[in-house]
Amino acid sequence: MAGSTYGNRFRIMTWGESHGEGLGVVIDGCPAGVPLDEEDVQVMLNRRRPGQSKYTTPRNEADEVKIMSGVFEGKTTGTPISMMVLNKTQRSGDYSEIASYYRPGHADYTFDEKYGFRDYRGGGRSSGRETIGRVAAGAVAAKILEYLGIKVTAYAKEIAGIGIDYDKFSMEAAADNAFNMPDADAAAEVETRATKIMAQGDSVGGVIECVVTGMMPGIGETVFDKLDANLAKAVMSIGAVKGFEIGDGFAVAKATGLSNNDAFVIKDGNVSKATNHSGGILGGMSDGSDIVLRAAVKPTPSISALQNTVNKSGEDIEVSIKGRHDPMIVPRAVVVVEAMTALTLVDMILENMSSRIDYIADFYKR
Amino acid sequence: MAGSTYGNRFRIMTWGESHGEGLGVVIDGCPAGVPLDEEDVQVMLNRRRPGQSKYTTPRNEADEVKIMSGVFEGKTTGTPISMMVLNKTQRSGDYSEIASYYRPGHADYTFDEKYGFRDYRGGGRSSGRETIGRVAAGAVAAKILEYLGIKVTAYAKEIAGIGIDYDKFSMEAAADNAFNMPDADAAAEVETRATKIMAQGDSVGGVIECVVTGMMPGIGETVFDKLDANLAKAVMSIGAVKGFEIGDGFAVAKATGLSNNDAFVIKDGNVSKATNHSGGILGGMSDGSDIVLRAAVKPTPSISALQNTVNKSGEDIEVSIKGRHDPMIVPRAVVVVEAMTALTLVDMILENMSSRIDYIADFYKR
Amino acid sequence: MAGSTYGNRFRIMTWGESHGEGLGVVIDGCPAGVPLDEEDVQVMLNRRRPGQSKYTTPRNEADEVKIMSGVFEGKTTGTPISMMVLNKTQRSGDYSEIASYYRPGHADYTFDEKYGFRDYRGGGRSSGRETIGRVAAGAVAAKILEYLGIKVTAYAKEIAGIGIDYDKFSMEAAADNAFNMPDADAAAEVETRATKIMAQGDSVGGVIECVVTGMMPGIGETVFDKLDANLAKAVMSIGAVKGFEIGDGFAVAKATGLSNNDAFVIKDGNVSKATNHSGGILGGMSDGSDIVLRAAVKPTPSISALQNTVNKSGEDIEVSIKGRHDPMIVPRAVVVVEAMTALTLVDMILENMSSRIDYIADFYKR
Amino acid sequence: MAGSTYGNRFRIMTWGESHGEGLGVVIDGCPAGVPLDEEDVQVMLNRRRPGQSKYTTPRNEADEVKIMSGVFEGKTTGTPISMMVLNKTQRSGDYSEIASYYRPGHADYTFDEKYGFRDYRGGGRSSGRETIGRVAAGAVAAKILEYLGIKVTAYAKEIAGIGIDYDKFSMEAAADNAFNMPDADAAAEVETRATKIMAQGDSVGGVIECVVTGMMPGIGETVFDKLDANLAKAVMSIGAVKGFEIGDGFAVAKATGLSNNDAFVIKDGNVSKATNHSGGILGGMSDGSDIVLRAAVKPTPSISALQNTVNKSGEDIEVSIKGRHDPMIVPRAVVVVEAMTALTLVDMILENMSSRIDYIADFYKR
Repeated sequence: MAGSTYGNRFRIMTWGESHGEGLGVVIDGCPAGVPLDEEDVQVMLNRRRPGQSKYTTPRNEADEVKIMSGVFEGKTTGTPISMMVLNKTQRSGDYSEIASYYRPGHADYTFDEKYGFRDYRGGGRSSGRETIGRVAAGAVAAKILEYLGIKVTAYAKEIAGIGIDYDKFSMEAAADNAFNMPDADAAAEVETRATKIMAQGDSVGGVIECVVTGMMPGIGETVFDKLDANLAKAVMSIGAVKGFEIGDGFAVAKATGLSNNDAFVIKDGNVSKATNHSGGILGGMSDGSDIVLRAAVKPTPSISALQNTVNKSGEDIEVSIKGRHDPMIVPRAVVVVEAMTALTLVDMILENMSSRIDYIADFYKR
Repeated sequence: MAGSTYGNRFRIMTWGESHGEGLGVVIDGCPAGVPLDEEDVQVMLNRRRPGQSKYTTPRNEADEVKIMSGVFEGKTTGTPISMMVLNKTQRSGDYSEIASYYRPGHADYTFDEKYGFRDYRGGGRSSGRETIGRVAAGAVAAKILEYLGIKVTAYAKEIAGIGIDYDKFSMEAAADNAFNMPDADAAAEVETRATKIMAQGDSVGGVIECVVTGMMPGIGETVFDKLDANLAKAVMSIGAVKGFEIGDGFAVAKATGLSNNDAFVIKDGNVSKATNHSGGILGGMSDGSDIVLRAAVKPTPSISALQNTVNKSGEDIEVSIKGRHDPMIVPRAVVVVEAMTALTLVDMILENMSSRIDYIADFYKR
Repeated sequence: MAGSTYGNRFRIMTWGESHGEGLGVVIDGCPAGVPLDEEDVQVMLNRRRPGQSKYTTPRNEADEVKIMSGVFEGKTTGTPISMMVLNKTQRSGDYSEIASYYRPGHADYTFDEKYGFRDYRGGGRSSGRETIGRVAAGAVAAKILEYLGIKVTAYAKEIAGIGIDYDKFSMEAAADNAFNMPDADAAAEVETRATKIMAQGDSVGGVIECVVTGMMPGIGETVFDKLDANLAKAVMSIGAVKGFEIGDGFAVAKATGLSNNDAFVIKDGNVSKATNHSGGILGGMSDGSDIVLRAAVKPTPSISALQNTVNKSGEDIEVSIKGRHDPMIVPRAVVVVEAMTALTLVDMILENMSSRIDYIADFYKR
Repeated sequence: MAGSTYGNRFRIMTWGESHGEGLGVVIDGCPAGVPLDEEDVQVMLNRRRPGQSKYTTPRNEADEVKIMSGVFEGKTTGTPISMMVLNKTQRSGDYSEIASYYRPGHADYTFDEKYGFRDYRGGGRSSGRETIGRVAAGAVAAKILEYLGIKVTAYAKEIAGIGIDYDKFSMEAAADNAFNMPDADAAAEVETRATKIMAQGDSVGGVIECVVTGMMPGIGETVFDKLDANLAKAVMSIGAVKGFEIGDGFAVAKATGLSNNDAFVIKDGNVSKATNHSGGILGGMSDGSDIVLRAAVKPTPSISALQNTVNKSGEDIEVSIKGRHDPMIVPRAVVVVEAMTALTLVDMILENMSSRIDYIADFYKR
């Protein structure tokens, strides 16, 4: 495979370019009987849709999803689910110039080195539109998790250097501002700072945090397929992500065993933890606490400010990237982090079912 | 699979428990013709060996590797390479008590939840000894990279809150101190601080950095199998790692597009980059610059200081973990990070060979 | 995965039901630079199209393929190729009755047992239309093989008990008759016999043979991924296939070592074989001779003659299957065997590229 | 991977050469809690052991298996199970001559073409001893099937052209004769004919049949991972197998729909089948009947009778293969067919557990 396949048990294959016919995904391995209609997927896709505020690209793409297979009478059938969004507003003319040079911070150069040429229209396969397939599949994964009582929630923890205050944490606030930021005051500060940076033709980065509630313990495989390892791959595979943390993340480097270990305690008769430095995962397996992860998102590389680069004739040149680009990716990437997290959890929840022979025998005795 | 398999083209399966017969690895997919003998593997294994200083566990295990298959007349044959280290100093008695309770920060609880019971002797499969298989396979991967002119070097960037000064950077220094720290002064500081913390029965964490030189561009697959995504999984799968960064990592969150983009420049007639914020990877593919990654390593959870936990009878108890444990994992984990990086690079270098039909046709015309 | 994914290096995922929105396939791992347009795929799809003679179902479906992604300026780009055929003539009313009972020889009962319910319209995912995805992907694989000088040709070797005479072998004849039978006389006999059996509301089976010319030696992996093992899986995965042979197949059971071994001989200075009992594969690897394989195809299970079966209420009933069904599958399955063979060959040709470190080093030195 | 890995959920990696240190297998994905000791594996290994009669090679290898990991207090722990047989009676001198030429019917030539050189001692990795890993892993799979009430039984159906008479079928007889043939009279005939052919320095082939009883319905995945497709690959991957059949196999080519369809009937209130032409699989999923499959095994290619071949200097030569070779492989391959069948069944039984969301939810509610 050349990289557009993800998952083992719940496996997806995404396809499509920014300026081709459309984009989509096929899911192989979705259990039968999951209630699903196009609206379930559309709601999640709408959250990554551009054009919702001045901080995101003004392209007003409808991105209407169509389910092509695998659903019958409102339920998944166990056969592949093919979903598709047709491209509508391709203005290839916008992009013709960039065919001749390599945009800094983009995949233009590496694509040419790998494949010998590239579909330069709108970034082709390395466009942010590639995430449509991830989010559509993630919506199906989220339905499965919902069935099992598990919920995945991501939000902007920090943008342009301004972080949220957990004392003011409110997911209602996140829904109200253009930044998916669960702290209204921080969002207001971001607005001021980002506006200023945007005015200079520049862009900003940030940190996305994602919390999973309702996880059963024991999910994740030992050694290489640790739950946190697979989550790391899933989240790091998103375009602009440059760092990943689980639980206390890089802060553990300065901690000691005493401060970092989570004491087990009996709570309501069950094994529980007094703290959650581990981020809900011990030895690569879920420990029953909330899973907490974070992703560092780089500033959008497409900026109108003048930059140095080279063209395909081997000359040093100066460029200013035109076109409809988000000055910050964080707000729209929040739902992509949720999607990749959900896809990974479903894959490993299914994987875990073969862990014990007694449970397997019970399963087949039904 | 249940998680002890890694890689697609260069695939390894590791096995073994801390107190079983031994530990090992089988490699399926190693190209034929790689010069290899046991000494190549032993040298790398020795770097993870315990008992080398007072900061690492005093178990003086020889950990002698034996190659069981796949090598003939000093070269790999293309068939599976099986390597094995027999366990010698199993003192199971040391561990019998821990069978009854869940050690904080360890996988005891999650193992029981997943499998119904566990091999409690020395942590069983979740012991640090599990990394023997990783490092042995990594040694073979390193030989392949060497053949291709690529070198992977890891070191301690920070321990117990004390970081290296890049102006004093010296890999010779790293070889001279017990911490694999390429800054003699920082290492001296670590010694002072760590000794103090150890005296309290506590442990420390740190950060490992890894640099890859000599990489050709274009390695890595788009979308899900980005080179950085696969490196993230590889490194996060190591026992105590809680965070991963590529290039500037979490610092990108506070950067802007202008400060974070690496300008392309023509250097000696070739496309090059003026800076390397990207850490050698653009759009998931190597860009020809050095690859730079970091891992956050948590403090050893096994500490003799008193901790709260619960036993299997559901009672809250206090414990002090006895036994031979490293008060810091970072120095010994350095070679494991190198191994996982090398394994991932080889896998993706092989994967990349099918990227272009003209190159494939040339390959078969030979 | 739940079974609709095939291949490792050249990986396909097919989707779609007989009476859903359409059917299609996504290819992940197609090399860049392969010349490809919709006509290349359409030509191969037309060969499986129904309605071409009275021996195949009278549904006159256009089955027009559309390439949705992965091709730019007439060449594959290395990114996923999504192809799709929309369903046009769904007459679901034809099939409503079969929802209530289990058709003998069909997957109705096993689908219900596995998934709890099924999309009963036209067999849903177990319809012969499922092969559209296989054939579309196979057309791309065939283009790659053509680039490398390899050709895959299948034909009907036997239908309704009437076999071809190799002395009269002519692929022109195969193109001229409704049975894809490379012997005009045998085809005439089949016509007579099949007409008679069809008149009784019954159906017939046969054998498809497939020959690969131009293969380089050494393709195939030892032990489990032998080329013949993978071809067996590929061909046995086609709906009605119940047997598979490579080379002399079941005849080897009655042979002796002397009669079955192919002597090596020097021919024009190269190693060659005096005979080809092995069918072009030795020890699981291609030996440079033509690859010869065969598939046994069962008679169409959908027949109008009266049969006993049971309904979902647990009652014994008699049924006569109505609807538009082929009385023989062999002629239309020929191109499916070619497709599955081509897909397998491409996958293993790509796999083979990492067999030798010297060749790998040369590859990257270019 | 280079082919020594098999299975997805219950995954094995085998290793070892005829004349290396030993041979073995690692299993990744074995459920925890399966009762297992070395005797369970030894019993099955003993059935493939050479030296048991004059029809099999006189090498009297003990082939004692050692379990190195993954078992604790008599039960599997869910972690990798490593098993190993050390080589004892390597007489490399026997084989030195064959390094210079290509044995007809063997993998010598294809190995050289693929890898550039080969471990020529005793066939190296393509020796029949390679099956030790398969059988050891198969023994573990058989224990899992036993836990679930499923039994796999193979036997020689035909040797040297002499087939069994099902009216005289007796598995006790199979245990009593040197051929694993469940018909004492047929076995006696084989003895006569085989002795005569052996006297000419020649060898014989045959057919192995395998029956699975106790299968639940619904196992197998649709489209590419049909149960019969995966069984075909598993069985065809065994060294000398050249053909595979499920149910009526190649006989379906001459059948009609009426004669080949199995009528469903209600029996004791359950859905059952009046006949079993399908061999227990419909649409790629088990239908609850016995699974019946067959493998065609070629005559041993190593014969002492004079044969033509070529040497590595490109000369035509005549050879007589010396050494300790079985004049028939069938009797010893019977247990290998059982092993590969068991491995495939376990893999797909585990795979099937994620077919339905309601069952998954129930599983996690426990």
